Amino acid sequence: MPIDPPARFGEIIAEIDRAIEDRLNEPSFPQLLTDSIRHAALGAGKRLRPALTLLTCEAVGGDRSRAISPAIAVELIHAFSLVHDDLPALDNDELRRGEPTVHVRFGEATAILAGDAMMSMAFGLLAETPCEHPGMATALVQELAQATNRMIAGQVLDTVGGGDENADPLAQVRLIHEQKTGALLRASCRMGAIAADADDAALDAITTFGESIGLMFQIVDDLIDVEQHESHTGKKTGKDHEAGKLTYPSVLGVQGARDEANRLRDEAAGALSHLGERSRTLQELTAYLACRTK
Amino acid sequence: MPIDPPARFGEIIAEIDRAIEDRLNEPSFPQLLTDSIRHAALGAGKRLRPALTLLTCEAVGGDRSRAISPAIAVELIHAFSLVHDDLPALDNDELRRGEPTVHVRFGEATAILAGDAMMSMAFGLLAETPCEHPGMATALVQELAQATNRMIAGQVLDTVGGGDENADPLAQVRLIHEQKTGALLRASCRMGAIAADADDAALDAITTFGESIGLMFQIVDDLIDVEQHESHTGKKTGKDHEAGKLTYPSVLGVQGARDEANRLRDEAAGALSHLGERSRTLQELTAYLACRTK
Repeated sequence: MPIDPPARFGEIIAEIDRAIEDRLNEPSFPQLLTDSIRHAALGAGKRLRPALTLLTCEAVGGDRSRAISPAIAVELIHAFSLVHDDLPALDNDELRRGEPTVHVRFGEATAILAGDAMMSMAFGLLAETPCEHPGMATALVQELAQATNRMIAGQVLDTVGGGDENADPLAQVRLIHEQKTGALLRASCRMGAIAADADDAALDAITTFGESIGLMFQIVDDLIDVEQHESHTGKKTGKDHEAGKLTYPSVLGVQGARDEANRLRDEAAGALSHLGERSRTLQELTAYLACRTK
Repeated sequence: MPIDPPARFGEIIAEIDRAIEDRLNEPSFPQLLTDSIRHAALGAGKRLRPALTLLTCEAVGGDRSRAISPAIAVELIHAFSLVHDDLPALDNDELRRGEPTVHVRFGEATAILAGDAMMSMAFGLLAETPCEHPGMATALVQELAQATNRMIAGQVLDTVGGGDENADPLAQVRLIHEQKTGALLRASCRMGAIAADADDAALDAITTFGESIGLMFQIVDDLIDVEQHESHTGKKTGKDHEAGKLTYPSVLGVQGARDEANRLRDEAAGALSHLGERSRTLQELTAYLACRTK
């Protein structure tokens, strides 16, 4: 079982961080806003979503430089969602990736506005993607907007409630996971393929891949919350259980959740199979994500 | 002096509200999210920004049906900004347009997420604008994203601070007004012209018009805050003075602020002059906005 990300991953992350840093010099922003966005977007995160965008672009035969703007855009959407989810009115988290959360460090007003600014920066970036035809620009914007809508809907269901409480518990937790985490991971993959101007067959393969790893990623997250200690992960664990939240381990048991994650890993790998050598890093990343412990 | 909006305004607003209502049936949203967005976006507002988008599209020779998606997008951005600005951590307002604000009615978590959802819906809508060439789609997204960034930067300066406190007071208040209110009004106008595929001369005229009425609008708002009573406006007045905020009347005096508003009104009207009869409603609207009392 791979305990480290693929070797090429470090190089890709450095490329993403440089591109994010370049974007932070938005001249019209007050320093406080820039500082809080830097804290949110350049902390010790995994940069999984933008890496998926660059790697899917490569996997369908595109040059990954074409996907750099969409890649940063998905990371900014992810970072914005964490800043708002951490707020006292939502999850009330004081620690994220081993650091104080944005509202703890910069105050609640700044955290709300920094989250807002990251979202508008993300969409602005899409306007900078090189596009040969109007369909590409609009497809990217539509993809990111729909995924963001679904992510927010999932957060409402998870935090405030309002879902169908009579539904089967597995269906309930699956819906929340697919919306809250899965939608943006799926879009991260699809946007890489769209930026590469992939044909329908390749886009379909990447969609299946994105949906499978999206759900797998969150199931593994549920398992980490049950099995790992805070000192290992850098964020509070055991929270889902404390909050009485539905999770895959609480519905299927730890082994049942692990089996489902492995099934999704195989489905994701299968979807990539006809893309051949170009998808090798993506295959390695899938294997790593299935058994990561933080 | 016109005390009512132009006669055609009612018809335009009804068209905008029908289009917003159509968008609220986003199938993936929990009911609570839809209800809170409806409360925020379909209350008793002026719908000034989307009206400007439709009317500028017409004024440069476009069919206003082309600008309906950008029009709703700017209104959703405006509505999102009000929901977040009203939050306890920012302006802490409980009353807006004579109704409870979103966080008072639906709770703070829902208000934060509803604001977020309105922003992503706005950008998603731009992807539905009919575009003949990639430049149009990307110009619309870029325009809205830049204006939203500037609006948020203005809100940071206004609420949290961080501006240059040694600058001339008039320069300080002008910068905040141009960012917090002016940028989105300017974009509302420019997006109508972009959706109409206006030539450079027409877009330049609309830009001057948008900048002039953008600043004029906020100066008139400052004057209303000084001169009118809450029972007339449906929102709390005298707030700027209580909060010790810099405003045009506090820097230039009431008459000085009124003179500046009138100068900007004339500048706006002048910018439209070569567009002729097609810009008549826009001309009437400008005259009304210069002397509105709520």
